[in-house]
Amino acid sequence: MPILSGQMMQMPLSISSLLRHAARHAGDVEVVSRRVEGDLHRTTYVEVERRARQVAQALARLGCALGERVGTLAWNGHRHLELFYGISGSGRVCHTINPRLHAEQIAWIINHAQDRVLCFDLTFLPLVEQLAPQIPSVAHWVLMTDRGHMPASSSLESLLCYEELLAAEDGHWAWPEFDENTASGLCYTSGTTGMPKGVLYSHRSTVLHALGQVSVDAMGIGSRDVVLPVTPMFHVNAWGVPFAAPMVGAKLVFPGPRLDGASLHELMESERVTFTAGVPTVWLGLITHMKKLGLSFSTLRRTVIGGAACPPAMMRTLEDDFGLEVIHAWGMTETSPLGTLAHLKAKHASLDAEARRLLQQKQGKVIYGVDLTIVDANDQPLPWDGRTAGQLLVRGHWVVDRYLGAAKNGSDSPHVDVAGERWFPTGDVATIDADGYMQITDRSKDVIKSGGEWISSIVLENIAMAHPAVHEAAAIACHHPKWDERPLLIVVCKPGAEPSAQELLRFFDGKVAAWQVPDDVVFVDELPHTATGKLLKMALRDTYRDHRLPGV
Amino acid sequence: MPILSGQMMQMPLSISSLLRHAARHAGDVEVVSRRVEGDLHRTTYVEVERRARQVAQALARLGCALGERVGTLAWNGHRHLELFYGISGSGRVCHTINPRLHAEQIAWIINHAQDRVLCFDLTFLPLVEQLAPQIPSVAHWVLMTDRGHMPASSSLESLLCYEELLAAEDGHWAWPEFDENTASGLCYTSGTTGMPKGVLYSHRSTVLHALGQVSVDAMGIGSRDVVLPVTPMFHVNAWGVPFAAPMVGAKLVFPGPRLDGASLHELMESERVTFTAGVPTVWLGLITHMKKLGLSFSTLRRTVIGGAACPPAMMRTLEDDFGLEVIHAWGMTETSPLGTLAHLKAKHASLDAEARRLLQQKQGKVIYGVDLTIVDANDQPLPWDGRTAGQLLVRGHWVVDRYLGAAKNGSDSPHVDVAGERWFPTGDVATIDADGYMQITDRSKDVIKSGGEWISSIVLENIAMAHPAVHEAAAIACHHPKWDERPLLIVVCKPGAEPSAQELLRFFDGKVAAWQVPDDVVFVDELPHTATGKLLKMALRDTYRDHRLPGV
Repeated sequence: MPILSGQMMQMPLSISSLLRHAARHAGDVEVVSRRVEGDLHRTTYVEVERRARQVAQALARLGCALGERVGTLAWNGHRHLELFYGISGSGRVCHTINPRLHAEQIAWIINHAQDRVLCFDLTFLPLVEQLAPQIPSVAHWVLMTDRGHMPASSSLESLLCYEELLAAEDGHWAWPEFDENTASGLCYTSGTTGMPKGVLYSHRSTVLHALGQVSVDAMGIGSRDVVLPVTPMFHVNAWGVPFAAPMVGAKLVFPGPRLDGASLHELMESERVTFTAGVPTVWLGLITHMKKLGLSFSTLRRTVIGGAACPPAMMRTLEDDFGLEVIHAWGMTETSPLGTLAHLKAKHASLDAEARRLLQQKQGKVIYGVDLTIVDANDQPLPWDGRTAGQLLVRGHWVVDRYLGAAKNGSDSPHVDVAGERWFPTGDVATIDADGYMQITDRSKDVIKSGGEWISSIVLENIAMAHPAVHEAAAIACHHPKWDERPLLIVVCKPGAEPSAQELLRFFDGKVAAWQVPDDVVFVDELPHTATGKLLKMALRDTYRDHRLPGV
Repeated sequence: MPILSGQMMQMPLSISSLLRHAARHAGDVEVVSRRVEGDLHRTTYVEVERRARQVAQALARLGCALGERVGTLAWNGHRHLELFYGISGSGRVCHTINPRLHAEQIAWIINHAQDRVLCFDLTFLPLVEQLAPQIPSVAHWVLMTDRGHMPASSSLESLLCYEELLAAEDGHWAWPEFDENTASGLCYTSGTTGMPKGVLYSHRSTVLHALGQVSVDAMGIGSRDVVLPVTPMFHVNAWGVPFAAPMVGAKLVFPGPRLDGASLHELMESERVTFTAGVPTVWLGLITHMKKLGLSFSTLRRTVIGGAACPPAMMRTLEDDFGLEVIHAWGMTETSPLGTLAHLKAKHASLDAEARRLLQQKQGKVIYGVDLTIVDANDQPLPWDGRTAGQLLVRGHWVVDRYLGAAKNGSDSPHVDVAGERWFPTGDVATIDADGYMQITDRSKDVIKSGGEWISSIVLENIAMAHPAVHEAAAIACHHPKWDERPLLIVVCKPGAEPSAQELLRFFDGKVAAWQVPDDVVFVDELPHTATGKLLKMALRDTYRDHRLPGV
């Protein structure tokens, strides 16, 4: 109890309040979804809110208790949005599952989360039928479609139809009020190493994140925006956009399963999208498509790019050729995900274009609500000079305290104490400059340790990606008898391009110190990615660790 | 306790975290103050944060306990900002006192609040010397200046010098962590009727208000803005700007005591101000000055106008002649103060200029975090049709629950229960349209009740203000033997203009129903205002209640 309490109204920060606000004050604003069934579906916030209440009623009727987990395997669409609110808003936990993971990993996650109900798009019916025998906690299977699209038969016992479940409810149900620290959502890290770990969001953390997210120095989303989240809702809740858009009453456009360049461009144009957010790999496809057909954007103005470092060449293309404001951002499942964003400050207005660009290529500065620091191997803070690299730590209202099932201070939930404050170690290596701009120099595990010196794999990749013949590149550590590790470049060329290894390596001259230039280049047809579109360097290291370097 | 708790970091929403954020991530951003001493003072967020820690140390040294109130009688300036954070951030309550109130009212307020320490600008030394014998709770008197400006003698016992107090502290002090519902600030309503009532803000309500305030559909303040709060810090904390600007790292410019048109314009130009917020009366002075000298704004882009309805003619002048985006807003001490803002929605893009203008002249729509409704005399909700007027109720994270010293459900702290939810009755009469745009038609007590029908005094005033000869106008109820009340117009003409009463009344033809046209006009040299710049219609009613209307 405070010594003296303020006397303002007390109401919990609740996820349902976001949708209630949208329904009351932006009720006719559209939510447009390209669906698995093939149609373009249109609804409004009033309708979404009513149907979310029906979802809550249906879950109660199924016997799903408060606090229980409801899993989703679904694309970005209005039904997934209704589930987000119906599940969390009623006091249950919305567990978004990444369908791009291996089946065994999905089964492991569902068992770890102990999902009671599983809701899934038509796309994932075969997957769920395959998984069913391994996930005994699931008592109800809900296919997110209408009666007309239900399969004639299924190996799943008493497969339920989402639209029928909703139609059986009258919507006469009021959103309950409960403690704002109640668990609301669950998302597992993609797990490039070890088993996936669950991050259990709360109503409070989710609403505070949304408040920070819509601010001018974050995504700057307002009621006049039309927002298309390319990032899947199973990837850190589409970076929070399904919470931020109703908060400000912005129109939402969901791309469903079609994330290819042509489909995305068509949808952005037809729905007059002004803002989007996604990973660099999605932009690769979109840029290729648009360049090929000579297309442009009529309404799109801003995009946040994160999930992986945005190659500078891509940033230039989007800004110079397509007129977008590109906001480079950094975050992770453990940070909800924002993070930092590379907005410029007022003091930077006088910088020349190149200097501004260099700043924008950093991961950026925090918004209020999160803080960061860098420390050395002994957890001592390092200077913010833009040069000294250290382990990146983060803390804040929407940063994970500990993973699901981990003890508060257990070894299974890493944390670092600095000057009495608890920080989460990101696993990234970064610099911070005097203005607070953070730049990731590498993942701790991806950095190439050559003769005791560190070489950033990301720096090498960005240089390679700027070469006109290179479509995608990875730099990994390769074993070396003298230097311990030396950088190896693995390259996917653009169609028709056939550069030599020498030509690519000469491209590094003057861009990095001579000893940082990769020792060799391997050409491949494609690079392995994680389920969330990130380069899977662990797999590359497994394959190429003992690649014979020239001169060895 | 929640059924299942989220596992995110838990840290209180604290006022000190706003300034810590600014010092860490926007440390070199300037805070510029025109001071009572006459100079233009420049400092930075790093310095403000350090000095705020010294304020906290000094308060502890004075024996001011946690939870105790520290009163301020001060203009907008860096020392007042340091006090905001040093007082609240250390767990004490910052009580901003309106120096424009009558001395007896100020003494009443200080006694009601039981202020332990009183900090005041040089301007207010004579006032405080006069008040001192009547305010026994005050143990320490702090003059907010340096040694060079201290008076040779004062009737105040052991008058302290602010700069000396700070200089005695080393700043080695860490911001404490405490319950976010702790009281942080205290502001009394201006009290046009009855005794002033205290609104006791909390850290949580203040930080959530700031988060809402910076969003695009509210003030849209970002790190690149230069913000000049014209609204005094003793009036609802300058509408929260001293919390919002550090939250986003925006440069702050404080005008001190000089709020005349010439001083404000010069400061806005020299400091490259991009955003400001103030009441209509301040703009009257600024517009007059600028028109007289043919001035314009080089950097100012947006302004929020609230505190009283912005006359449509003023809005047109600011937009058409000075190129500003005028954001009409509504709020009150009891709502921290936002409230509503008259931003347009995406759907309004196709409206013509006049239709857009009509919408912008409404008080606007709520931002997430507050909600509103209108009810009839039996507390039954009324339709949102833009025509039906009812008592305006409000609720939200930063809305008062009850006044200082009032019992939770006492008659001294009004509230209305609607469908099980607690609402605060604003005392305003308003309509809400289908899009959620609220328009105040009158204060409950200002509405003119003619033959059982209501006539909005504000509608009449806005029409009168649009007449080229009118500088300011008030419409009040005048006693009438048949109709009970009839409208009387009281007018201040522009210099040199001498319109007849008939000419002014003819100006209403076709703009309102014939029975709503005022019965008479009284010409005066000036109108009485409250300490916060609002028309003091109660005083006008006292004077003119029995004015003899023509034909009576």
